[in-house]
Amino acid sequence: MEAYFDNSATTRVFDSVKDIVVKAMTEDYGNPSAKHRKGMEAEQYVRQAAARVAKTLKVKEKEILFTSGGTESNNMALIGTAMANHRAGKHIISTRIEHASVYNPLAFLEEQGFEVTYLSVDGDGHISLKELEEAIRPDTILVSIMYVNNEIGAVEPVEDIGALIRRKNPSTLFHVDAIQAYGKFVIRPKKAMIDLLSVSAHKIHGPKGVGFLYIDERVKIRPLVYGGGQQRDLRSGTENVPGIAGLGVAAEEMYTGHREKMEHITSLKDHMIDRMAGLEGVTVNSLKGNLSAPQVVSVSFAGVRSEVLLHALEDKGIYVSSGSACSSNHPAISGTLKAVGVKKDLLDSTLRFSFGVFNTLEEVDYCIDTLKELLPVLRRYSRR
Amino acid sequence: MEAYFDNSATTRVFDSVKDIVVKAMTEDYGNPSAKHRKGMEAEQYVRQAAARVAKTLKVKEKEILFTSGGTESNNMALIGTAMANHRAGKHIISTRIEHASVYNPLAFLEEQGFEVTYLSVDGDGHISLKELEEAIRPDTILVSIMYVNNEIGAVEPVEDIGALIRRKNPSTLFHVDAIQAYGKFVIRPKKAMIDLLSVSAHKIHGPKGVGFLYIDERVKIRPLVYGGGQQRDLRSGTENVPGIAGLGVAAEEMYTGHREKMEHITSLKDHMIDRMAGLEGVTVNSLKGNLSAPQVVSVSFAGVRSEVLLHALEDKGIYVSSGSACSSNHPAISGTLKAVGVKKDLLDSTLRFSFGVFNTLEEVDYCIDTLKELLPVLRRYSRR
Repeated sequence: MEAYFDNSATTRVFDSVKDIVVKAMTEDYGNPSAKHRKGMEAEQYVRQAAARVAKTLKVKEKEILFTSGGTESNNMALIGTAMANHRAGKHIISTRIEHASVYNPLAFLEEQGFEVTYLSVDGDGHISLKELEEAIRPDTILVSIMYVNNEIGAVEPVEDIGALIRRKNPSTLFHVDAIQAYGKFVIRPKKAMIDLLSVSAHKIHGPKGVGFLYIDERVKIRPLVYGGGQQRDLRSGTENVPGIAGLGVAAEEMYTGHREKMEHITSLKDHMIDRMAGLEGVTVNSLKGNLSAPQVVSVSFAGVRSEVLLHALEDKGIYVSSGSACSSNHPAISGTLKAVGVKKDLLDSTLRFSFGVFNTLEEVDYCIDTLKELLPVLRRYSRR
Repeated sequence: MEAYFDNSATTRVFDSVKDIVVKAMTEDYGNPSAKHRKGMEAEQYVRQAAARVAKTLKVKEKEILFTSGGTESNNMALIGTAMANHRAGKHIISTRIEHASVYNPLAFLEEQGFEVTYLSVDGDGHISLKELEEAIRPDTILVSIMYVNNEIGAVEPVEDIGALIRRKNPSTLFHVDAIQAYGKFVIRPKKAMIDLLSVSAHKIHGPKGVGFLYIDERVKIRPLVYGGGQQRDLRSGTENVPGIAGLGVAAEEMYTGHREKMEHITSLKDHMIDRMAGLEGVTVNSLKGNLSAPQVVSVSFAGVRSEVLLHALEDKGIYVSSGSACSSNHPAISGTLKAVGVKKDLLDSTLRFSFGVFNTLEEVDYCIDTLKELLPVLRRYSRR
C-alpha cells in the first residue's frame, strides 16, 4: 500500500487540471498579448481562470493577480505594499510562526528601514487579539498573518483580526497568507476585511509554478518585476496560460462539493488523532475537528528522531514531512514548534502528516498499523 | 491551410515537452525539498534539466538559475546585480532597441539613482562598438545588450562586445538578453565573456511560465524574492518541476540536429524575403542569411495599416504579429522600428513573421500567395 501524506508540501494534480494544461500547451498555445485569434483564445483561458478564482472568494476578477506561486504572492504583498505606502509609515506587524516566504521578505524590509513587530502565539498556535490591538500604531501600514499554520494546522481568527485592524487603524492593510487555507476554508476577503490574500496552486491539486494574490482594488501596490505591462502593469511577462488555466480548474474543483470534501479530510484527521492516542509516547500537536485545519496532523514521537522515522515510513510507502518542506533547505529546528511550546526533546522527533482529497481512511489505518510496528523497534535501536 | 508565423511571441510545445510535464504533474509530483523518495525524484528532474541546459551553453549546472520566464530573468539580471554592486558604481549601459523587460527595469533603476546610457543603432539595428567603448567608465557596473532583436531579428556582435568590455573595464558585468537567440544560435558565455544570459522556455517550444538566467559563478547578485531558500537562496519558492523539466527537454531537443533545424528555418526566412521582393510596395526590414536571426522577418507594407492586414491574414489562417506581442499592452509605435530608421509612414504598416521548427516552405508560399491577393484589395479600400 502507498499513502502520500505530504499534501501540505505539494499535491498530485486533478486529472481535469492535467487536461487543460495539455490543451493550452499543444492546441491553444497563443500569447495572450497577440492580436490574432490564437492570442484571444489564450487570453480567454486567463480570464476564465480569473473568473473561476474570483467566484470562490466572491471578489472581482480584476482583483486577482496571477503570480509564479505562493512565494511570489507573499513577496509581492509585503514588499509591493511596503514600497508603495512607506510615506504613510514604516511599521509592520506579523507573527512568530509565519512561513519563510513571509518572514524573509520581512527581514529584507527591516534592512530597508522598516520596523516589524512579531506577535507571539499560545500553545495551540493562536495569536492574542489583545497583543495585536496594542501593537497597532498610527504608522502601522500592514499586518500580515497566516490563515493556517503550515506545520501544525493552527487556524488564526482572521475575521476578528480584520475587524480589529479596521477599528484600530482603518488605513492599515491586512495581508493573509492563505497558502494552507485556500481550498480548505470558505474565505470571504470583503467580509473579513482582508486586503491581500496569497494562494498557491500546487497545494490544491493545481500545477506548480503558479499562484495568485488577491489585491483589493483600493490597495496601492508596486510591482516586483517590470516589462511588457501584462496584468495591468502589475506583473509583466507572458502569462503562464497553461498554469493559470490549471489553477482556475483546481480552484473550481476544490470548491465543488466542498463541504463533503472537507468532511472527508477532517474525518481522516480526526481518525488519525484518535488512533494516535492508542500509541505509546506520542503527543499530537494539532487539534481535532474545526479547531484546526482539516488537513494537518503534527505528531511528536518520544525517543525517535523524526528523520529516522520518516525514512522507515518511506520504506513502507508512507510519505510524510519532518518540519515543512520549505524550511528543509535551512535545516534548523522549526520556529513554529518552539513557539507553541513543544518540549525541547520532542522538537527533533516531530512529523507532519498532511492530507489531500485523494487520501482514504484505509491509508490512515495502514499508517497507524505501520507506526505500531515500527516505533518499538526504532526506540529499541535508538542511541539517544 | 494554417500558418502560425508568430513563434517569436510564443510557440507550441514539443510532444516530448508535453510528455514530461504530464509525468511530473501526475506521477512524480513530489516537492524537491521533501526528504522522502518522491522529493528526491522531483529534485532529480530539476537537476537533469539544469544539466541539459548547462550542456547547451558549456557552463556549470550550478550557474543555471530557473525563473518564471524571460521577464523575471531580465529583471533579476538587472535589478539583482545593480543592488548587489551599487557600491562599485551606479552607471549602466544598454541600447535603444531593448525589450520592455529590459528597459522598464532600467527605468526603475534610474528612479533608484542609477544612470543609464542608451546606445544608438544603425539602419540594420547594430550598435557601434566605438560608441560602446566611449561609454564605458570606471563606474560602469553593467552592460546589458540583447543578442537578437525581437522585432527585426538584428543580431548584435556579442563576442566582440564581451571582449571590448573585458578590455576596457574588467569589473563591468555583461548581461545578454538571449530570449530570441537561445535555441537559434550556439552560445558560449565563457568564450563570449557573458556574465549573465536570460532565456525563456516558451520561445523554444518549451512551456510558458518558466525560463532561466545563466549567472557566472563569480557574479554578485541579490534575489528578487525571499523565502524557503530554494536554488541556493537566490530564487525561493517550490521549484516549478514540470515547467523546469519541460524547459530542459526543449533545450535538449532544440540543440539536437541543431544545424539542420536552423538551416531549415533560415531557408524559410530567405524564401520569404526572396518572394516578398516580387510584391509591390513592400520593404523588408530584416537581412537574409546569417546577417540576422533565422526566425524573424519584419516587413513594411506601404498603404496598408498593419492591424488591418493582420486580421485579413488571420481570416486566411495565417497568424502574425504587428510590433512585438509584449509591447502590445502599450500600443505605442515600436521603438526599434524608429531606431533603425523605418520611414514614418511605414511605422504603422509593419508586420513581423516569425518561424519555429514546425513551419514549412509550403506555408511560406501560401502566405505570399495570400498577400498577393489581399494587398491590392486592401489598398483599394484603405482610407489613408
